[in-house]
Amino acid sequence: MSGDEHLRRAIALAREHMEAGHGGPFGAVIVRGSVIVAEGWNQVTSSNDPTAHAEVVAIRRACASLETFSLGECVLYTSCEPCPMCLGAAYWAGVKQIVFAASRHDAAAAGFSDEFLYRELPLEVSQRSIPTIQRLAEEGRGPFDAWMAKEDRIPY
Amino acid sequence: MSGDEHLRRAIALAREHMEAGHGGPFGAVIVRGSVIVAEGWNQVTSSNDPTAHAEVVAIRRACASLETFSLGECVLYTSCEPCPMCLGAAYWAGVKQIVFAASRHDAAAAGFSDEFLYRELPLEVSQRSIPTIQRLAEEGRGPFDAWMAKEDRIPY
Repeated sequence: MSGDEHLRRAIALAREHMEAGHGGPFGAVIVRGSVIVAEGWNQVTSSNDPTAHAEVVAIRRACASLETFSLGECVLYTSCEPCPMCLGAAYWAGVKQIVFAASRHDAAAAGFSDEFLYRELPLEVSQRSIPTIQRLAEEGRGPFDAWMAKEDRIPY
Repeated sequence: MSGDEHLRRAIALAREHMEAGHGGPFGAVIVRGSVIVAEGWNQVTSSNDPTAHAEVVAIRRACASLETFSLGECVLYTSCEPCPMCLGAAYWAGVKQIVFAASRHDAAAAGFSDEFLYRELPLEVSQRSIPTIQRLAEEGRGPFDAWMAKEDRIPY
C-alpha cells in the first residue's frame, strides 16, 4: 500500500466507525515499513473515554502490539490533523512522520474543539478558559529530585 | 480533604509509583466535591503506553468510574503542570479546574519534554520537528460531511 492508500484507510475507518455510532468521524493507522501495525478510531462517546481519539487509540494499540513505548520507525496516518492531545501523544511516541487529510479548520466547521485548543494551549496559564493554579511548588519538585537520584530510572 | 491535601496525594503518588519502577515521577487525582474519584500515575515504561501519563490515566479511570465522558464537576490535581497532551485531555474531559504543583520548567530540568512540546505545538505544521504533511484534503472532509448529516450523532 502507498502512503495515500494508508491515508485512505484512515479516512475509511473514520466514516465506518462514525456511522456505526462508535464516536466522532476520525480514523488513524500506524504504519511500519509498508505494513499497518495498528488501526484506531474515535470511541469517546461509546467507551466513555475522552482520550479515546483515533490517534491515541492507534498509538496505544501499536505500542501494545510491538511491545514498546517508542514508535520511531512508524508513520502516523490520520483522517484529520491531530488535536493538541493527539499531537502530544505522537511526539511522546516519537513517530517519524505524520500525514493527515482534513485540517483543524474542517474539524471546527463540524463542531469540534481542535482549533480552539490550538489557540488555548499557548496562552499563559492565568489566561486559560479552564481556571488553573499552581500550589505547593516546592513540594512538587520533590519527586523530580528523587527521579534524578534513581540510578535505574528508564528515561522516555 | 482540602485542595492542598488532594495535591499532596498527587505528589505522593508520583513519588511512590516512580520508586516502584512504574514510570516517570508524576501523579494525579480527580476530585468531585471533596471525594477522590480516581487516581493516576505515570506508567509509560511499565505498560508500553506513551499516553499513560498520570493525568490521562486518572481521567480515563474517573470517566470509567462515573460512566461519563465529561468531568464538568471535577477538579484535576496533578503533581506537575500538565504537558500539552494531558492539558488537551483535561480540556476534552471538561474538568472545571486544574491545580498543579511543579512546573513545566521543573519537568524540563529533570529531562522531560513538556517545555519543548509547549514550544513545538503552536508552530506552523511545516516548522515542526516531526515532519508533517497534508494529503487528500478533499477526501478527508468526507467523514465530516457525513457526521453533520447524521441525525443521531452525539456531540462531545
